Amino acid sequence: MVNLPPLVHRLIELALEEDLGSGDITTEALVDEREGQARIRTKESCVICGLGIAGAVFEKLDSSVQFLSLIEEGSLAESGSYLAELKGPLASLLTGERTALNFLQRMCGVASLSRQFADRAAGRVVILDSRKTVPGWRWLDKMAVRTGGCTNHRMGLYDGVLIKDNHISVCGGITEGVRRARMKIPHGMSIEVEVDSLDGLREALDARVEIIMLDNFSPDKVADAVQITGGSALLEISGGITLDNLEDYIQSGEVDYISTGFMTHSALSKDISMEIM
Amino acid sequence: MVNLPPLVHRLIELALEEDLGSGDITTEALVDEREGQARIRTKESCVICGLGIAGAVFEKLDSSVQFLSLIEEGSLAESGSYLAELKGPLASLLTGERTALNFLQRMCGVASLSRQFADRAAGRVVILDSRKTVPGWRWLDKMAVRTGGCTNHRMGLYDGVLIKDNHISVCGGITEGVRRARMKIPHGMSIEVEVDSLDGLREALDARVEIIMLDNFSPDKVADAVQITGGSALLEISGGITLDNLEDYIQSGEVDYISTGFMTHSALSKDISMEIM
Amino acid sequence: MVNLPPLVHRLIELALEEDLGSGDITTEALVDEREGQARIRTKESCVICGLGIAGAVFEKLDSSVQFLSLIEEGSLAESGSYLAELKGPLASLLTGERTALNFLQRMCGVASLSRQFADRAAGRVVILDSRKTVPGWRWLDKMAVRTGGCTNHRMGLYDGVLIKDNHISVCGGITEGVRRARMKIPHGMSIEVEVDSLDGLREALDARVEIIMLDNFSPDKVADAVQITGGSALLEISGGITLDNLEDYIQSGEVDYISTGFMTHSALSKDISMEIM
Amino acid sequence: MVNLPPLVHRLIELALEEDLGSGDITTEALVDEREGQARIRTKESCVICGLGIAGAVFEKLDSSVQFLSLIEEGSLAESGSYLAELKGPLASLLTGERTALNFLQRMCGVASLSRQFADRAAGRVVILDSRKTVPGWRWLDKMAVRTGGCTNHRMGLYDGVLIKDNHISVCGGITEGVRRARMKIPHGMSIEVEVDSLDGLREALDARVEIIMLDNFSPDKVADAVQITGGSALLEISGGITLDNLEDYIQSGEVDYISTGFMTHSALSKDISMEIM
Amino acid sequence: MVNLPPLVHRLIELALEEDLGSGDITTEALVDEREGQARIRTKESCVICGLGIAGAVFEKLDSSVQFLSLIEEGSLAESGSYLAELKGPLASLLTGERTALNFLQRMCGVASLSRQFADRAAGRVVILDSRKTVPGWRWLDKMAVRTGGCTNHRMGLYDGVLIKDNHISVCGGITEGVRRARMKIPHGMSIEVEVDSLDGLREALDARVEIIMLDNFSPDKVADAVQITGGSALLEISGGITLDNLEDYIQSGEVDYISTGFMTHSALSKDISMEIM
Amino acid sequence: MVNLPPLVHRLIELALEEDLGSGDITTEALVDEREGQARIRTKESCVICGLGIAGAVFEKLDSSVQFLSLIEEGSLAESGSYLAELKGPLASLLTGERTALNFLQRMCGVASLSRQFADRAAGRVVILDSRKTVPGWRWLDKMAVRTGGCTNHRMGLYDGVLIKDNHISVCGGITEGVRRARMKIPHGMSIEVEVDSLDGLREALDARVEIIMLDNFSPDKVADAVQITGGSALLEISGGITLDNLEDYIQSGEVDYISTGFMTHSALSKDISMEIM
Repeated sequence: MVNLPPLVHRLIELALEEDLGSGDITTEALVDEREGQARIRTKESCVICGLGIAGAVFEKLDSSVQFLSLIEEGSLAESGSYLAELKGPLASLLTGERTALNFLQRMCGVASLSRQFADRAAGRVVILDSRKTVPGWRWLDKMAVRTGGCTNHRMGLYDGVLIKDNHISVCGGITEGVRRARMKIPHGMSIEVEVDSLDGLREALDARVEIIMLDNFSPDKVADAVQITGGSALLEISGGITLDNLEDYIQSGEVDYISTGFMTHSALSKDISMEIM
Repeated sequence: MVNLPPLVHRLIELALEEDLGSGDITTEALVDEREGQARIRTKESCVICGLGIAGAVFEKLDSSVQFLSLIEEGSLAESGSYLAELKGPLASLLTGERTALNFLQRMCGVASLSRQFADRAAGRVVILDSRKTVPGWRWLDKMAVRTGGCTNHRMGLYDGVLIKDNHISVCGGITEGVRRARMKIPHGMSIEVEVDSLDGLREALDARVEIIMLDNFSPDKVADAVQITGGSALLEISGGITLDNLEDYIQSGEVDYISTGFMTHSALSKDISMEIM
Repeated sequence: MVNLPPLVHRLIELALEEDLGSGDITTEALVDEREGQARIRTKESCVICGLGIAGAVFEKLDSSVQFLSLIEEGSLAESGSYLAELKGPLASLLTGERTALNFLQRMCGVASLSRQFADRAAGRVVILDSRKTVPGWRWLDKMAVRTGGCTNHRMGLYDGVLIKDNHISVCGGITEGVRRARMKIPHGMSIEVEVDSLDGLREALDARVEIIMLDNFSPDKVADAVQITGGSALLEISGGITLDNLEDYIQSGEVDYISTGFMTHSALSKDISMEIM
Repeated sequence: MVNLPPLVHRLIELALEEDLGSGDITTEALVDEREGQARIRTKESCVICGLGIAGAVFEKLDSSVQFLSLIEEGSLAESGSYLAELKGPLASLLTGERTALNFLQRMCGVASLSRQFADRAAGRVVILDSRKTVPGWRWLDKMAVRTGGCTNHRMGLYDGVLIKDNHISVCGGITEGVRRARMKIPHGMSIEVEVDSLDGLREALDARVEIIMLDNFSPDKVADAVQITGGSALLEISGGITLDNLEDYIQSGEVDYISTGFMTHSALSKDISMEIM
Repeated sequence: MVNLPPLVHRLIELALEEDLGSGDITTEALVDEREGQARIRTKESCVICGLGIAGAVFEKLDSSVQFLSLIEEGSLAESGSYLAELKGPLASLLTGERTALNFLQRMCGVASLSRQFADRAAGRVVILDSRKTVPGWRWLDKMAVRTGGCTNHRMGLYDGVLIKDNHISVCGGITEGVRRARMKIPHGMSIEVEVDSLDGLREALDARVEIIMLDNFSPDKVADAVQITGGSALLEISGGITLDNLEDYIQSGEVDYISTGFMTHSALSKDISMEIM
Repeated sequence: MVNLPPLVHRLIELALEEDLGSGDITTEALVDEREGQARIRTKESCVICGLGIAGAVFEKLDSSVQFLSLIEEGSLAESGSYLAELKGPLASLLTGERTALNFLQRMCGVASLSRQFADRAAGRVVILDSRKTVPGWRWLDKMAVRTGGCTNHRMGLYDGVLIKDNHISVCGGITEGVRRARMKIPHGMSIEVEVDSLDGLREALDARVEIIMLDNFSPDKVADAVQITGGSALLEISGGITLDNLEDYIQSGEVDYISTGFMTHSALSKDISMEIM
């Protein structure tokens, strides 16, 4: 696994602190210094994501715990299959269990939902996520999206220019917004503009932006947009995309991207548990 | 609002840092120093929770932003109603928008789901949450559960004794586990034991624990447990509780508590947006 | 030793930083990279507590230092006996010496004083500490109290309900205070109320609180309180308890707890030193 | 008050976090948003120190609390006198009470003990403290010593050169130690050497160190040391100084300094309380 | 000024802590609580940059200090002109002086050097900076470059794809490197490749990368590269660019960018001082 | 190497975070988990300083990277010579390269410039640095000065008393300033006063300060000052010292110290690179 960025370390520390506080009083009272083993098992079929994070939770709690993944990130695990084995002080295994599982359960949930999107898109369009992630979870949610087979939109406000409706209304129009952005556009970045009408699309095309986000367009309107654009900009469909209407949008015309917050704001945790052996 | 604990401040800082990184390049390029106003509006009916947190996000980003809640925490907002008004530098309003909404959307989601549980319980049993919260979000998820009308189980490992299956297997039995806990039990706390069978229940009753968690009991088995217990301990149903099977469990017998992770691990974000005026 | 909570790690870091600042200029000037050994020895008889913390100080300063405890936590060391052996870079041994000893000296002081209380109580009553600990030292002071043989009252404001005089005056009475607490009492916790008169005691009993703290009662008044209570609540004596008046209070009647801040706010450091071998 | 150094802010944050954790459950349950007033009063006569720190505790908890000192730092307060008045949300006054008092009680204790040393010295010798402070409390303990009327020895390992017994044994002698220190001595600093015998003293004098610490010398031996030194170095008595033997040492000869850890490692907290008005 | 990113706040805190440590002993000894005024003046002509940062230093030290800029960021100040006025506690003005000036002096130095590059380029080519900034100063160094009139290359490793020589040697060639990057390229970003020969250039062109960095090409070789490229990719000259050879490179052919670390790794601080009035 | 102070660890973390942000997207896309080797080489002759810091950068990024110094700190490396060898995951070597080099390049620059000063002084006078260091870099800049062969003035405001022009104007004169300092002077420290005239010098001599800084004196005026002082205080020349005028000042009279900010505020980074083998 790549080196985790500092913000992820800070989230893991936060998660341990909020659960442990001044100590795990039950485990301290009941469990002595014996070593033991445990296994993590999924109780439902899901795309696996986050075993490295679960391991990092135990590593931070007690670096003497050994965590061995039994399955590759991104693979589909059947219900009942074992995902990881742990060895170490029983007290640490018990104390870290819930926090590690809470990470793993959500990450598998996001990855599994993303896999559904990727499978339905079947390579016909690139499925992108959004910034509608759980606060504190940006990097993990986006990692799970990639693991599921979709692609990340910008990580945050710092690594992509996206001129949205509120920017446009403040600036006094798309043309002016793009003009300002062009003057300060960072080296190597494209300009993306969100439009909510075909008129907006035309204005954005005139301003020669590289990517245009069609916000809340119906599939029919998307078809019109594709025709108007004629390949002179990359097109991205956005707004209210779900698994149910994805096919309609894909068939509406040859767009480059479909972006959706659904994979991160509507993912359900998978049922995964740990058992002491 | 009560003073936010340090861990919540740390989560808000993390959330802002993961989104802003080295700066909001779009807003910095497009927006000057003008002041402006904005409104937050819900696009679907929901129980409101987290306006104070959304305000804290803007406060931390730029303390000159004024945030005025237009509705009380815990009240039911209709689709389309305005939740808050903001005044301040337009750049700060735009930069903080998504992070503030991401907090608010999830908190309203958890509170709304909890309200459904509370409404269906209708005072016949106390509905408790669990520690199956999003890592980093323990305090916020539990605050949303209370706002929805349910009750918090322990906040973490530090403020409640709960002897679970893994503790029991490590200890060599309920009786021994309770004996050890009794010796070190913190002043003013009760002992709760998780049991997975009627035999376990009887052993826990013999050990005179104050609260017994019936883990994954069917409604019928709960009825037996209530009879066996005869009021000599508080009973808590746990495991697999959803909105669908809640009524069956409530009718299964007079238990004191039903606890569920569903309200926090399966909440969907509500659709809430901000518009510049 | 159990995993140290983050706050203890932060205190140890603080302690090292306040002493080292920009560096130990004496040691850096005088000592080269040679390795060496040292021993920690007590110059007065005391109950040992904090060797794990002393070891953690050196671990944090220089993880190549090896720290070997020679005596068990909680045992009584005679004057002159060796408590620990250290091996590692001489510079690190010299630089960490004072900080490690400062921790150890106070912790042995608190544990020794607590042992005196425990010995005099001789099992007839549970001796509790209080929140009158040195700021930053809550967990360590309470750990030393346990090591001495007494029991911890709540760790902080978050893991126990204690309605004190100031709460009562703000609420308008014990009855109202208990009513409000009962509505929000966390799962698995008892309510404790502080009373300063027999009338207060009667009101608290009527409100059916689980634990009643008799604040600044004379031994005679305690005797009356025990009689009035008749076993219908747990009783805790508090206020001005010292080693001198402890016996009077124990004999005043069958109470469950005696709590005192004396063990933590009036402990004197033990005389312990380190010598390079 | 001078700007508090970051380490003191960190200690105050630590102190609040260890007490509040996930929240003051009693106050949150009982107290609404009303404002109120409180007064801090000492129950025993003492030298006042730490009101600024107590104020900083409330400031950090809730910046809307107003804290007004009623007495100057360093003045002697009689038993029963009021030290400060507070206004603000009653909940914040109640939540911050114990942490603020714990700071104040210890600081007044250290300042009062230091005042006793200063009064007995009566200007005949400078009384210095040591690094035997409570870990985390270096700056506060030393501030209290100054407030009491004594003088600070170096703050830590970074702002003074002190060659102690362990350094000497590692270096192979005083002469060599001083030679090495002289080569790297920071601009504007003196060299101090600890000696445990008259031979050591003579070696230190030959090495022309500026300050010599006479460690654990009897008053008679101090007299000899003064004569041998003949004003060619500053002399500092150290080791086992208490209020009881202070006079003997002062009379033993004209030394410049007497240093002692007693003021900080053996101070008892003063009895100070807060009452809601 | 835009909101400062957290890393800049952390650098300012670091800078204050390294200078203040346990306190400004000179100012604490000499200066009472009086208020006063001061002025910041430049002793040499320079492009002004960093007044907002200097103000933030005082704000963090003591929020009661008022800092008023007298000149716009980016304007050219003549020697002797006043840059800012300050009001507040004299002690805080004196304590913060050097840290604030140290920031300002370097930032004006970088901005002034960048202005020289921008002036000489005179719009014929975009001058870019590099990642050769002072560690901890990335954002400030890059802000000063912009203030001087040049453009930022990527902020860090996270917001731009740049395949350098070491990547290519690890990957086994430009073609393979670009293939891998293309598969994972973040939404909205271009691929830049560094080449050190005309063969490398041709390979990069075949791989259809958007931007090609000509590393350490002579002006003659740049001319060849421009011809070979024929407008099918953006070209960036890099390696050993100084004010002295800049003109040669500009005249070597129509490239899009010239990037250089010179503006940040070789800037000299400007002579700026503060005087109490 | 001595243990690094916490502020240096914080700077290294800051430097890594500002460069890595949410991840090294190029390396993550191109480089797999293979291990490899690299070498650091200087492209110009310089005094080596900071290899330990470069090693600490890699250690913090990925503790599995092994960093082996090939040359001693403080030695003069010829152009082209190898400074260090690294082994470890290729991805980590590539990701840490620039940050490690940025540290090393500046530290070698400062050390090399300091060596020039030390060589020219040739032991005739002690060359001191100043507090004109890059913010965040105090300890590293001063370490490089020592490595170059010069001596450190005080580290910060906390470990030396220096009464400067602004202090004197606030105090109402040198005499009064020294009087106040004398009352609070920390144990073991000298008083230094900055004077800008021979009258100031005489006043400082009357006040019996230990060290006098002659600020912006011409060489002739320094000669007068030396005569007036006649050995009754240590003298330090300061203000506008460069390599060019150093000899004039050294020959102006027998002063003890010459202090200059030139070594730190005007050092240029050395050209050092890393190559994958």
